[in-house]
Amino acid sequence: MENKNISIGLFGFGCVGQGLYDVLNHSQGLKANIEKICVKDKNKTRKIDAGFFTYDKEEILKRGNHNVVVELIDNADEAFAIVKQAMNNGVSVVTANKKMLAENFRELYEIQTRNKVALIYEGSAGGSIPIIRNLEEYYDNELLSSVKGILNGTCNYILTRMEFENKDYQDVLKDAQSNGFAESDPWLDVAGFDTKFKALLLTVHAFGIVLNPEDIFNTGIQNVSYEDILYAKQRGLRIKMLAVSHKVGDKFRVYTLPHFVSGDSELYNVNYEYNAVEVEGAYSCKQTFVGKGAGSHPTGSAVLSDISALTYDYKYGYKKLKKFISSSGIIPEGKPQIEYDFAIKLYIRYQERERLNDLEIISVEEEYKASGTNYIIANVNFKSLFNIYNKRDNKLFICVI
Amino acid sequence: MENKNISIGLFGFGCVGQGLYDVLNHSQGLKANIEKICVKDKNKTRKIDAGFFTYDKEEILKRGNHNVVVELIDNADEAFAIVKQAMNNGVSVVTANKKMLAENFRELYEIQTRNKVALIYEGSAGGSIPIIRNLEEYYDNELLSSVKGILNGTCNYILTRMEFENKDYQDVLKDAQSNGFAESDPWLDVAGFDTKFKALLLTVHAFGIVLNPEDIFNTGIQNVSYEDILYAKQRGLRIKMLAVSHKVGDKFRVYTLPHFVSGDSELYNVNYEYNAVEVEGAYSCKQTFVGKGAGSHPTGSAVLSDISALTYDYKYGYKKLKKFISSSGIIPEGKPQIEYDFAIKLYIRYQERERLNDLEIISVEEEYKASGTNYIIANVNFKSLFNIYNKRDNKLFICVI
Repeated sequence: MENKNISIGLFGFGCVGQGLYDVLNHSQGLKANIEKICVKDKNKTRKIDAGFFTYDKEEILKRGNHNVVVELIDNADEAFAIVKQAMNNGVSVVTANKKMLAENFRELYEIQTRNKVALIYEGSAGGSIPIIRNLEEYYDNELLSSVKGILNGTCNYILTRMEFENKDYQDVLKDAQSNGFAESDPWLDVAGFDTKFKALLLTVHAFGIVLNPEDIFNTGIQNVSYEDILYAKQRGLRIKMLAVSHKVGDKFRVYTLPHFVSGDSELYNVNYEYNAVEVEGAYSCKQTFVGKGAGSHPTGSAVLSDISALTYDYKYGYKKLKKFISSSGIIPEGKPQIEYDFAIKLYIRYQERERLNDLEIISVEEEYKASGTNYIIANVNFKSLFNIYNKRDNKLFICVI
Repeated sequence: MENKNISIGLFGFGCVGQGLYDVLNHSQGLKANIEKICVKDKNKTRKIDAGFFTYDKEEILKRGNHNVVVELIDNADEAFAIVKQAMNNGVSVVTANKKMLAENFRELYEIQTRNKVALIYEGSAGGSIPIIRNLEEYYDNELLSSVKGILNGTCNYILTRMEFENKDYQDVLKDAQSNGFAESDPWLDVAGFDTKFKALLLTVHAFGIVLNPEDIFNTGIQNVSYEDILYAKQRGLRIKMLAVSHKVGDKFRVYTLPHFVSGDSELYNVNYEYNAVEVEGAYSCKQTFVGKGAGSHPTGSAVLSDISALTYDYKYGYKKLKKFISSSGIIPEGKPQIEYDFAIKLYIRYQERERLNDLEIISVEEEYKASGTNYIIANVNFKSLFNIYNKRDNKLFICVI
């Protein structure tokens, strides 16, 4: 197979875009060049020649102007419009935009199929860790039972610093915001939405199942306190924000929740901005991939690897997904294989007792009350968690134990 | 790309062969069948139908009898003959035989190129960990600086049990032999030859450099004692047998030696038969892959993944290697990029002081003498290690510190 030259039209020149530019400039042997970069802000000073930039997206998207579009902007809706237009013009796309991918997966899949173009996105989950391509290519015939992992660098960075520096959530968050490890509005990260988008993508490539974001419950570390960290520490545990997608019988359970993990877990020592993914298969047993989950150069290098793959005409085969869909290339609606009605054991710290009434508590195993801190450890019907979904003010910290 | 049906001619039905049989039987959607299995021993009772077996290798190798040959026998010389004949007949081969691959790499590469067939071997290094394919495909344009790892399950199993159970080497080795974790002649494993063969293969796929096995120094845990384990333990370290292949300036250093690793290393918690590989790149930073390094099913699943890749006509592109070789497909002899003349800091436990005279010691940093146990910590010229290469009786335990 001979590789071909690639001319790249790039959207976005933020953290990852600049990372890609650096990585591409230092890469040997890759026949790919960034020809044009579409950005929004005309007044920003940029470290490379002004001739690279355009403010008109049509200059890149007009039919046939570039072999490949690389989409690295923040806004998921604008990204979707760009990616759709590029693919409809017959151009393959590399993106790292997990929100855009998760929110529009069905349509994006259909556009790919219809136009016979590639849409690849290794940088969208696990930063530099090559997890999507491994699920797609290497574990294609394994009887996988579980994929789970630490997929959000911001959450992990905050949790690590709270523990290592004995600090409370707000202090670390403020610090993380000022040094670029958290957004000014951190909700998508800390409340588990970002982790969930990635869980959705891993579920597609691990099991061939396409969910909508709202099908997957998420809560995060938005209400974590130093007491929770201390609770974990005293028991030799650590709190890790996890995406979980696993098979139980012939059904799947997919969610993102904080978990206590013990010292013998590979995930225990994955700290700060590092990410990790554990893949369990019937025969390969447990495999763990660890690497930097975010950042300009790590994510840039994942994007570069995708670009390199396009020089060899790579595209995802979606072998597992194809087992479930008709030859028309339409992914059926619904989520028949997903299970919600099961008991999950949770540690729940609360401020107001009545907030627990939203949950269907099956049995309480422990209860602790003291001034300023109260928690229960209880078996809860998982589906009742949706009653508290995305409530910003409930002050519950929920952690799988 | 449509996948094709594959008819497999299998050589060997030992641990990995039987593992492959199980994994293949439970795999969904893979269009591959084992048609014939060539074995040696006519008197062995086997768990599957006798009709599968043949004792005549020509029945599989005769031109055109099978699409794919899977070679999983012990004997490296016989394996080489089989693999060569298959490829010369235009048949692609999957193997997990690192000794055969390492000893004959140049010739095997040339036969592949000449016959335009695939020779793939994910199961040959890291058991179930997909390291070769990731080095080949995912890190193809990364500026890699280092690949190192725990690649021998037997060594790691012995070292782990010595530490966790406070036992001496001979006791654990005997136990490991009786429960199948070590061979009756363990020399290839414990003295680091097996690790070295794997280091050789990783060096090809990480850096495009082909070495001969004798170009790579190896010593292992054959002389480790409980005192060494204790020395490590008291300092919060663990001894791990590592393959190392890294770039220093524009030269490469490749060797396999025991190392002390500290608690903050990802390798510290990789215990028993688990393997791990750390890949460092200029932009992706450090990535770690952990998984079961040996065993019937984990290795069988790596072999299965290779077979599955062949249904899509996959072959290694050897992109990095091709930068160094002529269009004739001949790999040049010699090892100009490898560095031997450098200082390495070693812990060396000895019984007879004069054994150290074989080594070019640059400076001694510590020296400890007591009845029954003596060690030095010294900077040693690396190339002088070849003076003690493969000496079974020197009783030196050497560990990078």
